[in-house]
Parts: sequence; C-alpha cells; structure tokens
Amino acid sequence: MVPIVSFVGKSGSGKTTLLVKVIEEMRRRGYTVGIIKHDAHGFEIDHEGKDSWRHKKAGASTVALSSPEKFAVIKDVNPEWAPERIIASYLTDVDVVIAEGFKKSDFPKIEVIRKENSSEPVCGNDKRLLAFVTDLKLDSKVPVYDINDFKGIADLIENEIIKKHEPAQISLIVNGEYVTLKPFIENLIKDGVTGMIRSLKGCEDAKEIELKIRLKTK
Amino acid sequence: MVPIVSFVGKSGSGKTTLLVKVIEEMRRRGYTVGIIKHDAHGFEIDHEGKDSWRHKKAGASTVALSSPEKFAVIKDVNPEWAPERIIASYLTDVDVVIAEGFKKSDFPKIEVIRKENSSEPVCGNDKRLLAFVTDLKLDSKVPVYDINDFKGIADLIENEIIKKHEPAQISLIVNGEYVTLKPFIENLIKDGVTGMIRSLKGCEDAKEIELKIRLKTK
Repeated sequence: MVPIVSFVGKSGSGKTTLLVKVIEEMRRRGYTVGIIKHDAHGFEIDHEGKDSWRHKKAGASTVALSSPEKFAVIKDVNPEWAPERIIASYLTDVDVVIAEGFKKSDFPKIEVIRKENSSEPVCGNDKRLLAFVTDLKLDSKVPVYDINDFKGIADLIENEIIKKHEPAQISLIVNGEYVTLKPFIENLIKDGVTGMIRSLKGCEDAKEIELKIRLKTK
Repeated sequence: MVPIVSFVGKSGSGKTTLLVKVIEEMRRRGYTVGIIKHDAHGFEIDHEGKDSWRHKKAGASTVALSSPEKFAVIKDVNPEWAPERIIASYLTDVDVVIAEGFKKSDFPKIEVIRKENSSEPVCGNDKRLLAFVTDLKLDSKVPVYDINDFKGIADLIENEIIKKHEPAQISLIVNGEYVTLKPFIENLIKDGVTGMIRSLKGCEDAKEIELKIRLKTK
C-alpha cells in the first residue's frame, strides 16, 4: 500500500486547518498528496439542482464527472468500504496519503489535541501513535509537536512515513476486501501478470497495469 | 466493457431532464445504472469552505470522502482521461452506463433534439446512432422517439444495449490507456490471473478481482 498517516483527534481540535498547512508543505517539498477523510455522519458534496445531483437522486448508483483537468466520482456503497480498499482502488498514484479520522484503523497516527477542546488523548495507547500535536504541555512517550509546527510535522511524515516505507508495487482487492500479500507472493503475482500483459501487442512497455475481473455468477 | 449508451445533443436540448426519467425507469426495471457526464468547461462539485474543498485547494491531487452509505473522489488529471478509462476504472459494477456528451466517442448514441433549441442533428451521420429523441417530425433511417417517451427509450436501452451486450468479465488499463482485448486473450488473462489469485489463502472463492501494479521507474 501507498505510505499513509492518519490525523486523529476530537472534532474541533483543528485537524483540518493543520492538514491544510501540512499538505501545502508536502507539496512544496515535491510530494504528491492524497487525502481520505472519514465522515461517520455522511457528507454532502454535490450542489442541489445540478445535473449530477439530479442523476444521483434519480437512482444512479455511481455518478462520474469528467473534465479536462479533473474528474469526480460519487458512489453508493453498502456496507461501507474499508479505507484500505478505497486507498487501493483510488489513491495508489500519490506519494503519500494523509487520512483524517479512522482512529480505529491500523494506520500510523498523529493525534491533534487543542487545549480549549480537550485534554484527554483519544489514541494515547495506540501502538501506531507516532506523535501528538498540541498546545498543551504533555508528558508523553511519543514526540510532541507544537500545533503551529507544520514543518516539524512534515519532517516527521517525510522521515517516518515516506522514507521508511517501500511503496508497494502491487495492490489486490478480492471480493471487495483488500488483501495483504507477503513479499514473495507479491513478486510472484507482479512478475506473472506483468509478463502476461507485456506479451500483448502494444503493451510491451507496461509500467502501470490495472486489471479488473468480474466473473459471471451464473 | 460494461454496456454503455451515450445521450448526445446540443446544450439545452433537455438531455438531463430526459435522463432523470430514463434512470428512474431503468431502476424500476431492476437495473443498476452508472452515469458519466462530460463537461468540457470543468465543473464545481464541492462546496467552498468545506474541509474537502480546503484540502483540494491546499494542493492534494486526490481527495476521497468516505461515509457509511457513499463515498466520493475528486482527482486531478492531466491530460484528460478517456471515458473508456474512467468507465473501466470506476464504473464496472453497474448493469448499464449512461453517458451524457462524448459525441466524438465510439459509444452507441441516442441524440436528443428539441424544436425550440435546434433542428439539425449533431450526430446524424454517426454509424453508432441508435435513435433520435425529439419533438420534431424527423425523416430518419434510425427510429425516432417522442421526447416524453422515456419508457420506449428504456425499452431500446434494454433490448439493444443491455441484452445484446455480453458484459466483459475483464477490463485492462495499461499505462493509463484502456486496452481492447480479443475474446481468446481475454479468457487467457482471466483464467490465468483468477487461477493465480485463487491459489492464495482466503481467496479460493475470488469472483471479483481488482489488481493494480505500478512498477518502480528506477
């Protein structure tokens, strides 16, 4: 999987404002950044009355919008997709994924605590906790960053997440579940499938392969 | 590729209003529907000031939002992705894709013409033109449907697109390009990869496989 770090903390702790600064800093350092945000209460992204909103409301399960500079997809899911699946499907082409939320996930985490909002960590005992970001004086086993120190936090992401993490060259989703592969198996599938695809005319130079198989259920 | 039909016609011809009725009718008949809409002038989907909007503006190249019932992805592209690629990546899990626009594509098409808007077809000579939908009296080689006859149009989609089209069990994108496969090759890749994946522990029952490979460029 692509290198990932999740920012956790109570609602109102200032995660989004901090993330904006961290994203800008990572971009200045030349990294491409993908974001995944969890919203347990649902979200409204489209504008009421617009064509895409009307199509979705009419019952389309997926609506995609394409333009010369960007595209967007809105999709019904049931049950909720695990973040690993979304990342493996939609966020494999960035240098780092920054997640907001997903405090129960197995991702490495940075917890944001703001004095006026909370004094209790929500992930204090999480083994994947990398650091706290706070305006409190905290006694902690993990490093503590000042809430304005977005450069220090970018250093942390660069050194502990991006540089220590070998980006996977393969991601596999089977029947909707992200599958973790051992390096040996990963190589076997990677080399086997790449060899097969490169034998196709016009695909000799295949570097990025995306293959979907949906077997007939009858 | 999944069965697809594109509605074309001048801006203001009533495509969206018609599509809403057609989507509702296809849903009533039990089909899942995906929509892809082309907007040459770009689109605004997110709400200014919202977290996801702020992240995107800060420079994230992809923003994904996840909730229990739906998810959304907004992604920068350069150059523009071909509709075949978007469909193969994001719209493989529906019974039919209805496109709006893409008049230069190779998709089967239904052209909408409204009297007060236009009297000249834009795809009159297109070999993939299936029908006109209009409030004009048209002399045409292809069937002509009344602009309010959404049931007739749904019949057309059901009979000419969904039932005549064997949904592909495999889709392949190599270096960002959708690859058309001959049936023999399609089967070879499908059986080879499925066999490989089903040999993995826990994947014996693999019916839907999504595999991405990104080889290191160094």
